[in-house]
Amino acid sequence: MLKLFYSPGSVALASHIALEESGLNYDTVRINFSDDEQKAPKYLKINPKARVPSLVTDRGILTETPAILVYISQLSPEKNLTPLDDPYAFAEAQSFNNYLGSTVHVAHAHGGRGSRWADQEASFADMKQKLTQTMTECFELIEAELVKGPWVLGDTFSICDMYLYTVARWLPADQVDIRQFDKVASIFNEIEARPATARAIEMHFS
Amino acid sequence: MLKLFYSPGSVALASHIALEESGLNYDTVRINFSDDEQKAPKYLKINPKARVPSLVTDRGILTETPAILVYISQLSPEKNLTPLDDPYAFAEAQSFNNYLGSTVHVAHAHGGRGSRWADQEASFADMKQKLTQTMTECFELIEAELVKGPWVLGDTFSICDMYLYTVARWLPADQVDIRQFDKVASIFNEIEARPATARAIEMHFS
Repeated sequence: MLKLFYSPGSVALASHIALEESGLNYDTVRINFSDDEQKAPKYLKINPKARVPSLVTDRGILTETPAILVYISQLSPEKNLTPLDDPYAFAEAQSFNNYLGSTVHVAHAHGGRGSRWADQEASFADMKQKLTQTMTECFELIEAELVKGPWVLGDTFSICDMYLYTVARWLPADQVDIRQFDKVASIFNEIEARPATARAIEMHFS
Repeated sequence: MLKLFYSPGSVALASHIALEESGLNYDTVRINFSDDEQKAPKYLKINPKARVPSLVTDRGILTETPAILVYISQLSPEKNLTPLDDPYAFAEAQSFNNYLGSTVHVAHAHGGRGSRWADQEASFADMKQKLTQTMTECFELIEAELVKGPWVLGDTFSICDMYLYTVARWLPADQVDIRQFDKVASIFNEIEARPATARAIEMHFS
């Protein structure tokens, strides 16, 4: 059976929502970042990157959100969580998810995890000070150029919407008002209202 | 026909090599970062992120290296550039490429593009000073945990090897000696020796 390692409020929520939407059977294991459990030897055997999510499968362990989201979609093709049968549409979904992973999530991480890339407190403060600007710029691009509407990929709900929802949940902490982005806010509210999301959130924060 | 927008020495080289390996017909357009061509209105219509690569297709324009590499693989399935028919093996390839895109490439970017995430010269210097350490840690993880050997995915050459080669080309500038990573160095030399790589490099740097 699938087993998802997550920490509450992390990007692992996207995989968690996808698992709920997929109808697949799975277990979860909570990793408490507040206790540095992600750096414990026991967890490093699961994921030597000391990150979440990690998805344990019968074949091995998968990491990285865009990879996990597609894998979950492929295990539940009848749910149409990703346009798997059209290479171009699939590439568009991948492109969107890769932008969230390599640019937006990274921008957000500079608010609290500057020590990944620098050593001085003054640098961390500088990064933190720029956070609202960089996240606003990311979401301006998402709103104007990347989201087709009503869903990210157009008429079809997909893993891209779940991932966008997860990253957009960080906007208040980054002091960015989601209401300035109409299409993003609409997707956020739609995903928030889905029963699968409610179940994943309940597990994350209970 | 496919058209690849690239800048010499950028991560677009991975897509360029993949196009050469694929046997697909394509054109290229060089974007000179030294002249800020990536920020010109003409290019922003191609890619509003002001980045490379961009792959123009008959259906639209694709960005983000992991997405483009898989798309090229899907257009040339007879070349087996990605394990497309095995969801788990495909997820492993995706996971590897996402790590390069969202962690390793990002770590490297802190050497010269600190202004994406901070404003002060002192912060840029701090990031630059940490660059060798972060890139070394990334490649230690790649060597010890991610590369199966002899290729990234084991016995089968794939887009992961082309992408790893492209990112590893930055190691000398980041003052990291590739020779400490046996498996990575072996892949680097194998990719470097392939005719497709030579053709892509020739176009990049001529």
